[in-house]
Amino acid sequence: MIKVILEVILMSSLSADANFIDVIPLDKIQYNEQGLVPAIAQDYLDGTVLMMAWMNQDSLQKTLETGEAWYWSRSRQELWHKGATSGHIQKLKAIRYDCDSDALLITVEQVGDIACHTGERSCFHQLEDHQKIAPPADTLSGVYEVICQRRDHPVEGSYTRTLLAGGDNKILKKIGEEAAEVVMACKDDEKDAIASEVADLLYHTLVALSYHHVDLKDVYRKLQERRR
Amino acid sequence: MIKVILEVILMSSLSADANFIDVIPLDKIQYNEQGLVPAIAQDYLDGTVLMMAWMNQDSLQKTLETGEAWYWSRSRQELWHKGATSGHIQKLKAIRYDCDSDALLITVEQVGDIACHTGERSCFHQLEDHQKIAPPADTLSGVYEVICQRRDHPVEGSYTRTLLAGGDNKILKKIGEEAAEVVMACKDDEKDAIASEVADLLYHTLVALSYHHVDLKDVYRKLQERRR
Repeated sequence: MIKVILEVILMSSLSADANFIDVIPLDKIQYNEQGLVPAIAQDYLDGTVLMMAWMNQDSLQKTLETGEAWYWSRSRQELWHKGATSGHIQKLKAIRYDCDSDALLITVEQVGDIACHTGERSCFHQLEDHQKIAPPADTLSGVYEVICQRRDHPVEGSYTRTLLAGGDNKILKKIGEEAAEVVMACKDDEKDAIASEVADLLYHTLVALSYHHVDLKDVYRKLQERRR
Repeated sequence: MIKVILEVILMSSLSADANFIDVIPLDKIQYNEQGLVPAIAQDYLDGTVLMMAWMNQDSLQKTLETGEAWYWSRSRQELWHKGATSGHIQKLKAIRYDCDSDALLITVEQVGDIACHTGERSCFHQLEDHQKIAPPADTLSGVYEVICQRRDHPVEGSYTRTLLAGGDNKILKKIGEEAAEVVMACKDDEKDAIASEVADLLYHTLVALSYHHVDLKDVYRKLQERRR
């Protein structure tokens, strides 16, 4: 049991037959008057909230048994195996319920990187008509997105743009420099300086990724794979 | 308008008087039969889902006007200014609605880093009785958490443990080495190697942070501050 929980939290790649049933006590979940509980689906790589849908006890049980997300379609009034027609299934990595047991949080690998029926990655893509921007994830992903925007839509006077214009030799020189500054800050054991220098190193590393069109999510995948 | 949206998405530090009202068309939101819409609160630093609660039109409007989260308490049947008594208010960074306008996603700075009434950071802390483990966030935060677990509860044969036991001289040597390998992979323009080497550099940088007890969230804060 503890092993299962630890493996879930360590975000290891659980196979579909992992015993999720043990993790969620089905009889403890509080369903509403329609017998439903809201389920938030979150991407396991960068924490992006992909969608919110509803589960009844049957769909929760199917989700736990199969290791893939099943919801209850309120419009069609039927069990809904997410991705059954589109292929964009959600592979369960972890599942939790909240402090009053009336909401679920499922951590998923989103096949095809598309959760929304509109073809967008997340159902929360929309700010207003004709303005679609990726929803917030973690800080590093947000900074990476901004760097890629600067790359694709150069802004006058932007430091990021200057770095990108200088190419590898300018960007990589900074990585060496910032790595050395992380080393010095650590040797001095100055916590605030360490945080600052690591921030610098991360930023310049993201610039290198963006310059070479390597997605930060590919780096995250590498890190996740090593946790297997 | 576009400026406001961009500033929101760039996760800049919006002051309370930022015009959030413009971002969410209040009349477009689909409330349920009780006049409520689910609102997911997500931490702006690492993407952790902190809680899910309910808003009615009044609480949504208050949230947009004040730049702090207001919910509707279903148990008390009243407007609920989150943190009014505990001090754990949620400062609004961004707000979105989903593709069918019946769920909200609010990005917040959680004051005190505690969202749950139990004193935990997230309401989704619970896997089962007596087993409280932090809910998933982004990959880097997950790896950092594992490294800190290895630091505090050494596991025989763990590479992370070997690094930590070697201290700065062992850890920092690896940072220099991995930075050099990122440089070489970039010069070769080999995308898969770049992703791998950056993953290595990030991992060893996290080990250095953990060794010096510097929280990854402090690094994220540095990066967010620079986006002001």
